[in-house]
Amino acid sequence: MPHVPRHFLSTLDWSRADLQRILDDARALKKRPHTGDLSGKGIALVFFNPSLRTRTSFELGAHHLGMKAIVLEPGKGAWPIEFDDDGVMDGEPEEHIREVARVLSRYVDAIAVRAFPKFQDWQVDRQDKVIEAFARFATVPVINMETITHPCQELALMLALQDRLVTTDRKKFVLTWTYHPKPLNTAVANSGLVIAAKFGFDVTLLCPTKDYVLDERYMKAAERFCQDNGAKLTMSHDIESAYDGADVVYAKSWGALPFFGRWADEKPIRDAHKHFIVDEAKMNRTNNGLFSHCLPVRRGVKVTSGVLDSPRSVHIDEAENRLHVQKALMRQLIS
Amino acid sequence: MPHVPRHFLSTLDWSRADLQRILDDARALKKRPHTGDLSGKGIALVFFNPSLRTRTSFELGAHHLGMKAIVLEPGKGAWPIEFDDDGVMDGEPEEHIREVARVLSRYVDAIAVRAFPKFQDWQVDRQDKVIEAFARFATVPVINMETITHPCQELALMLALQDRLVTTDRKKFVLTWTYHPKPLNTAVANSGLVIAAKFGFDVTLLCPTKDYVLDERYMKAAERFCQDNGAKLTMSHDIESAYDGADVVYAKSWGALPFFGRWADEKPIRDAHKHFIVDEAKMNRTNNGLFSHCLPVRRGVKVTSGVLDSPRSVHIDEAENRLHVQKALMRQLIS
Amino acid sequence: MPHVPRHFLSTLDWSRADLQRILDDARALKKRPHTGDLSGKGIALVFFNPSLRTRTSFELGAHHLGMKAIVLEPGKGAWPIEFDDDGVMDGEPEEHIREVARVLSRYVDAIAVRAFPKFQDWQVDRQDKVIEAFARFATVPVINMETITHPCQELALMLALQDRLVTTDRKKFVLTWTYHPKPLNTAVANSGLVIAAKFGFDVTLLCPTKDYVLDERYMKAAERFCQDNGAKLTMSHDIESAYDGADVVYAKSWGALPFFGRWADEKPIRDAHKHFIVDEAKMNRTNNGLFSHCLPVRRGVKVTSGVLDSPRSVHIDEAENRLHVQKALMRQLIS
Repeated sequence: MPHVPRHFLSTLDWSRADLQRILDDARALKKRPHTGDLSGKGIALVFFNPSLRTRTSFELGAHHLGMKAIVLEPGKGAWPIEFDDDGVMDGEPEEHIREVARVLSRYVDAIAVRAFPKFQDWQVDRQDKVIEAFARFATVPVINMETITHPCQELALMLALQDRLVTTDRKKFVLTWTYHPKPLNTAVANSGLVIAAKFGFDVTLLCPTKDYVLDERYMKAAERFCQDNGAKLTMSHDIESAYDGADVVYAKSWGALPFFGRWADEKPIRDAHKHFIVDEAKMNRTNNGLFSHCLPVRRGVKVTSGVLDSPRSVHIDEAENRLHVQKALMRQLIS
Repeated sequence: MPHVPRHFLSTLDWSRADLQRILDDARALKKRPHTGDLSGKGIALVFFNPSLRTRTSFELGAHHLGMKAIVLEPGKGAWPIEFDDDGVMDGEPEEHIREVARVLSRYVDAIAVRAFPKFQDWQVDRQDKVIEAFARFATVPVINMETITHPCQELALMLALQDRLVTTDRKKFVLTWTYHPKPLNTAVANSGLVIAAKFGFDVTLLCPTKDYVLDERYMKAAERFCQDNGAKLTMSHDIESAYDGADVVYAKSWGALPFFGRWADEKPIRDAHKHFIVDEAKMNRTNNGLFSHCLPVRRGVKVTSGVLDSPRSVHIDEAENRLHVQKALMRQLIS
Repeated sequence: MPHVPRHFLSTLDWSRADLQRILDDARALKKRPHTGDLSGKGIALVFFNPSLRTRTSFELGAHHLGMKAIVLEPGKGAWPIEFDDDGVMDGEPEEHIREVARVLSRYVDAIAVRAFPKFQDWQVDRQDKVIEAFARFATVPVINMETITHPCQELALMLALQDRLVTTDRKKFVLTWTYHPKPLNTAVANSGLVIAAKFGFDVTLLCPTKDYVLDERYMKAAERFCQDNGAKLTMSHDIESAYDGADVVYAKSWGALPFFGRWADEKPIRDAHKHFIVDEAKMNRTNNGLFSHCLPVRRGVKVTSGVLDSPRSVHIDEAENRLHVQKALMRQLIS
């Protein structure tokens, strides 16, 4: 068994070959779902934010492998947690991440964490403190269920695309920003960008203005992965040329990084770009392209029902694949 | 295996013979609870309203059959959902029922839904939009865990009555309205009425005034079932004659349909009928009748402790039976 | 099998030998976690207050034994419950404990309950009405998951201490009050006091003033247990002499009983005793003593990080042991 990282915090430090092995196992699990080979093992699912698919797919996937998943919601059914290491806990949190991570590591064989950014200061959010603290103090593998990236979604997307494309190398992948009434997390956008680049696509990032370009950590990683694969990364604000000849259109809305903490100033820009909605006319410019979105998706706002309900949309497959890839991931990480 | 409906939304479209087969299997499961024959299967329990018995009995029942139940609470731990098909989702819901139902259908083998009416407009509530939307878009069986009827409760009640009566045909079943400080759902009243009629009882609906008569959909169905069985359906506002000779008294409080959305106007009527409480004096008029109630029940308000704690009350049996009938139902619907 | 109490509400009515048998089984389960010998059984975990470790360890422990645990949160996902026996339920609760306990007893093989005091009137709280009502009406064993004592925590502590000490008899156990910004439950303090006394320790209760002495029910029980074991119980307000030669320091914060319902008056006293924090200087006075705390613990407030992160702190072991002792307890109580 080749060396793989101990945790699954992001795909940045996982090789394409290691990720492909997980995708291959996921494909096998799709056919033969019940292995029971992690019988008696446990996983804690720690949700700082709500979830439908993630919780369902992890709970069910754990059950298929013979495991028990425990759902924890700090601040709701459980105590608020302190992540800073400053020594005197006289605020709200009753418990330090050191204790939480160490105790959970005694009970279970993996800890999965969902912790969205606070949307006030991207310089703080980009440190991804919550999951990094879990990874530091846990003695079992830590899995990212969406923080500032969403690596499980990346695997699900890539499995869906591989199932429909002969190859991903040098195909055209367009990551398009879309309108949404609220400024959303950049996590899936960061993830879509880097995983497409890692798997050999020519990647186009289509967004309203330069303010919507993603964090340089992910932009530079995507550029490096594209270079490694002999592919190219393009940034564009022009809808027509971006869609032209696309093999895949991946849609997501996100808030512009320079506007963190002053969202009222961003609103007029966002409102001025409702025409970024994915519709049949735009899809007609593509190379009979596939469409996907990570869900939840607002019909008629981010994408038309016509596109979503067409046979070229793989968003339901992508959602289903969460189950398969996460099972493969647990099998990879938990011994 | 004879044809049965794909979903279990209401008993209206299920034949007495099909329902009896579920009751017989429930009786067998009561003796031999652990079959494991749905091993590896999953069910999503979608709660838009709180639950004690329903969740416990479904989770436990699924476990007995080898299944995994996933509890989802949209609007709490999960996203709010859009049920209308109007195209542009620019309100609160982040997700359309199309996506929710289709994705859940990929993960699990059945979807059970609890969605109470909104109590503002009965013409809207009686369309039962939430569960009907699940049934329309899901590709797996959908089970009603209480909406505007409560068919699982019907099966539990009928199992309890069959265990205590030699026959249900032409026995006298009284469905009595009782006082409760709030205007409650008519679901269990609708259900009690139609299931008693379907199983051959002479059915008396006892309520304060004609405003408390149930929706014509259920009144007419009960009338039709009674006719088919050579039995009779009676509507009464007279407590004494209604109780006289009753073999079963089933109590429930509900809000009057004409007062939906203007409950302050209904309050004086309700308040004037606190004497509808089921007590020992009334039960003494019956034919040594059985008593039941679906729970939760307010002691001293809907029924006296004397009646509830007597050996003629089968409400705890009825509650226990939820476990058995739901297991039989899952075995019937899930292949 | 010798006679043991039917419920596990407190350790007061359990003999040291009976408790030791549970500890011995817990130690065996630590090595061989998956017995599956309660396969098909169920347990309801009823939480009136939040939980991290308790829920995780019970859910996981039940799974290890082959059981299914159902989590219920009355007032959140379930109905509010009436505990008084006054006959007319015209307030908030929709359901009486008689029904809840009897129905749950039909579904599951044990009921575990967490119900904290209300902190308004200790004379009311000390009656422990909620769990006592469950015990009265349930027909299956009832387990205390923390009310005004925390007996599962007692077992976890004692297992951790036995794993590190040659004997507990006549060793010096110091239960020290510590500062916390809020007035907390006396449950773990009561529990620490009586279990140390029952297992033969010389017990010192160290607290700021006589107002912080624990309820006489637990003080007198500890005195009796100490007498039975030829050990002694000491009450002290002097930090230095209390720590001198201690073999175990167990820390906990709690609110003073005479101030229930008027906590603003207690605050100045509490605030004046922040120096009760467990630190390295104090621990240096001990006989190379072990330290523990039940969690959650505020670092730098109740105890320094230096003490918590030292090899003499067994708080993580104690937390882990919750899993093992509760499994042993379920095996003891559930047939």
